[in-house]
Amino acid sequence: MTAIIISIGDELLIGQVVNTNASWMGEQLSSVGVDVRRVVTCADEAQEIRRVLEQALPAGDLVFLTGGLGPTIDDLTRYVVADCFGCPLELNPKVMKQVEELFSSRDLPMAASNKSQALIPRGFEVLSNPVGTAAGFHKEWTDGTRRSELFVLPGVPFEMKQMMSAWILPRLSKQVSESRVITRTLQTTGIGESWLATRLGDLSPFLSDEVKLAFLPSIHGVRLRLTAWPERAPDAASRFRGLASHIRDRLGPRLFSDDESTLEMVAGNLLIDQGLTVSIAESCTGGRIADRLTNVPGASTYFLGSVTAYSNQIKTDVLGVSEDCIRTHGAVSREVAVAMAEGIMRTFGSNVGISSTGIMGPDGGTEEKPVGTVWIGYAREAKSSAIKFQFGSDRDRNKSRTATAAINRLRLELTQDDG
Amino acid sequence: MTAIIISIGDELLIGQVVNTNASWMGEQLSSVGVDVRRVVTCADEAQEIRRVLEQALPAGDLVFLTGGLGPTIDDLTRYVVADCFGCPLELNPKVMKQVEELFSSRDLPMAASNKSQALIPRGFEVLSNPVGTAAGFHKEWTDGTRRSELFVLPGVPFEMKQMMSAWILPRLSKQVSESRVITRTLQTTGIGESWLATRLGDLSPFLSDEVKLAFLPSIHGVRLRLTAWPERAPDAASRFRGLASHIRDRLGPRLFSDDESTLEMVAGNLLIDQGLTVSIAESCTGGRIADRLTNVPGASTYFLGSVTAYSNQIKTDVLGVSEDCIRTHGAVSREVAVAMAEGIMRTFGSNVGISSTGIMGPDGGTEEKPVGTVWIGYAREAKSSAIKFQFGSDRDRNKSRTATAAINRLRLELTQDDG
Repeated sequence: MTAIIISIGDELLIGQVVNTNASWMGEQLSSVGVDVRRVVTCADEAQEIRRVLEQALPAGDLVFLTGGLGPTIDDLTRYVVADCFGCPLELNPKVMKQVEELFSSRDLPMAASNKSQALIPRGFEVLSNPVGTAAGFHKEWTDGTRRSELFVLPGVPFEMKQMMSAWILPRLSKQVSESRVITRTLQTTGIGESWLATRLGDLSPFLSDEVKLAFLPSIHGVRLRLTAWPERAPDAASRFRGLASHIRDRLGPRLFSDDESTLEMVAGNLLIDQGLTVSIAESCTGGRIADRLTNVPGASTYFLGSVTAYSNQIKTDVLGVSEDCIRTHGAVSREVAVAMAEGIMRTFGSNVGISSTGIMGPDGGTEEKPVGTVWIGYAREAKSSAIKFQFGSDRDRNKSRTATAAINRLRLELTQDDG
Repeated sequence: MTAIIISIGDELLIGQVVNTNASWMGEQLSSVGVDVRRVVTCADEAQEIRRVLEQALPAGDLVFLTGGLGPTIDDLTRYVVADCFGCPLELNPKVMKQVEELFSSRDLPMAASNKSQALIPRGFEVLSNPVGTAAGFHKEWTDGTRRSELFVLPGVPFEMKQMMSAWILPRLSKQVSESRVITRTLQTTGIGESWLATRLGDLSPFLSDEVKLAFLPSIHGVRLRLTAWPERAPDAASRFRGLASHIRDRLGPRLFSDDESTLEMVAGNLLIDQGLTVSIAESCTGGRIADRLTNVPGASTYFLGSVTAYSNQIKTDVLGVSEDCIRTHGAVSREVAVAMAEGIMRTFGSNVGISSTGIMGPDGGTEEKPVGTVWIGYAREAKSSAIKFQFGSDRDRNKSRTATAAINRLRLELTQDDG
């Protein structure tokens, strides 16, 4: 069963509001097995809404139209739908009563314009709105050969969500159980998209219309999304499992999670399992590594704290990095990264110390150490080391990539220690 | 001049990724006077992409197609465009060279699959990508009566943004100057949307179809966006200026910026102007305040560093908060917030110290100190104080709101000291 979502509103087109309604609907519809084919956002303009609606009706089994059901002059949806279906608008007394009751329950007078919200195209079934004034409505459409069902919903997120959750999704869930989807997300970090593809090799034995793989790159790594429709082909489920285990074998430790766990959750769990504590000495990341680690509830079990040593004085005074070391090797160097990691481990009394020092940009680069040069240090008991990375020129992205690399370093070291 | 934006990617349809690319493009295109008519998101499927593209080309003066230019099997855009325009793909040696250089500058070997990224449909002009491997391309389209221009751009946000900002927007900006829009964003923090509206009073003397005001609330505060079309009404420009100065008068210090400066930039500039240094003692924010402050290039001028004292031991050992103080008042208290701010100022030798201590959730709340309770401390020479805030139940939002409140506190204290 396929669906098309149409969102109406100028504010979405000019970027004043991000279209999170469509994302939420897409997620919910997918989860009950509906295949969302297209999302269209269009202007608050009758002709344009009608054009988009007419293109959508023959192209999807379900068409969702959200927004433009309010009481003001720029709310055109009900008029366009009535026109398009040839169903004149009629005042629905039940909806009228609900709108009136909503106002009186809030001790507010009702504006005359709210009456328009009780106008429903003849022959449409009402979707009542217990949390707002904009009722929804729906009806089957056909041109003789193709059929679809149109759902018209309010654009206010919690009103739309209420109608979807209370009525539409449970109904669809029953209808489409035969087209149920299974998905899994395998998360990698530290390896580029194209190298990942090379490393995975020939995937054609696994893939088909019923078993799909998507590469979703972000600054934190590449997520691999596996999707299968087990009812559509007898071997889809086994190919799905085969693909997942093939990817696991090929990627080894580059894969850090096969669920929605973040990298910092995975690193945190390793620390808990091994009964270890960590502390962080940051320079270039300015606090971002510690911030990321403490996004995990309960991080206080293993995270003792951090120092952002932005000035060299603090590196020396608080972390005990010798002035000599900084003078000889420069603040961005293997030696300083190691001394920072050892310094924080010692000062904070943790089992593991992690450090970052680098040049985040836009300024401060040299020929020898261009913007994007980063050293990440690791210290544990007698063992210390540092690894160099070369990132790009954007300050914020460099901070994020360095934080990810540092937390990944922690994860990899703990995985090795564990194995 | 009208535009249609097409975003390609299954991950957008199933709600795994929110389509912020389209929002950003909509905002930017509107700001140079382009009228965005429609945004379509479609699946990673050749037939569907082609159908959407064929509907868009005759319907807008400009058509933007983003996504699906990567090196993997699910990247179909270049093939569909080549097919739709009847322009065979050709290996572009210049693009090939850029891709090779990008890999070698990062000391990485290039995968064979990246070669596909140098395939450009014949007759298309290349939009080079200095920050990634996916080059864009563009070409005029016509069916004899209607004309449009198709721009094919990568889906990775910073790569798309770079191409838009460096080349496309400046070019469009010249073309559409007759429908020029003037905009200004006034940024507030620490006050709610409805309270702001009340405080602003009656704005009807300023507003009309040619002068508009939008309230854009976010977790960091409410931005007020003023927009005017000076060519559409003779008094639009003066009403626009009048509105801006009315808002300034009404809001006073609640307004922190009338350009795109962030709160941390404004606070940083105050520190520079007054020749002061700052250091931060974080508990509940886990590093986020320092991270935010160091997002500003050149922050090392005034930011010495920070300590995240997640454990009470670190609060005592590193910041010198007495065990007695923690035992008597609890770690989340006025007294500890003040002691932390004084401690970091003393330890790091800065002029100003800022601190945070609170309960970020989801657990750890009590009846007396529920989740969302936060104290922010401020220390400068002999003057120390702390202010309490009550935020919500979401951990990440609480960290963000606390960091914003702390940086705003710094800004307000420096503004008062300055006045």
